[in-house]
Amino acid sequence: MKAHVWVMLKSTVLDPQGQTIHHALSSLGHSEVKSVRQGKFFVLDLNGITENEAKQKIEKIARDILTNSVIEEFRFEIVK
Amino acid sequence: MKAHVWVMLKSTVLDPQGQTIHHALSSLGHSEVKSVRQGKFFVLDLNGITENEAKQKIEKIARDILTNSVIEEFRFEIVK
Repeated sequence: MKAHVWVMLKSTVLDPQGQTIHHALSSLGHSEVKSVRQGKFFVLDLNGITENEAKQKIEKIARDILTNSVIEEFRFEIVK
Repeated sequence: MKAHVWVMLKSTVLDPQGQTIHHALSSLGHSEVKSVRQGKFFVLDLNGITENEAKQKIEKIARDILTNSVIEEFRFEIVK
């Protein structure tokens, strides 16, 4: 079983990396790109637990370890 | 319209960030996590193009700008 976790800056938090990429794209002529946000994506390989246990476990890991809850938010999915 | 782009290290390339997280999880008792890979996730806001144009455009942007093709690979989706 695998877990996918997305960690993004909250929408109220400035994203300088995303802005830098946006400026680069604009200067290269990609004017149809209106904004860019960059986040982190984690793939965790899981073993020896049920899907329900995995959901609880991954929610805890994402909240406590992968995310800085002051400025970031997360979502996750469990994939078989 | 939005585009989601995932950029991951190729599976043959070592991922020290993922390994560090994996070790941290192990030492915190999360032994059911067998491996961790970390990648980047981009959300691009698009305007004034059709879905087909967006597919071509984002594939080009992902390949040429967001990905270092020597060590990374990407996938993307267009979301309405």
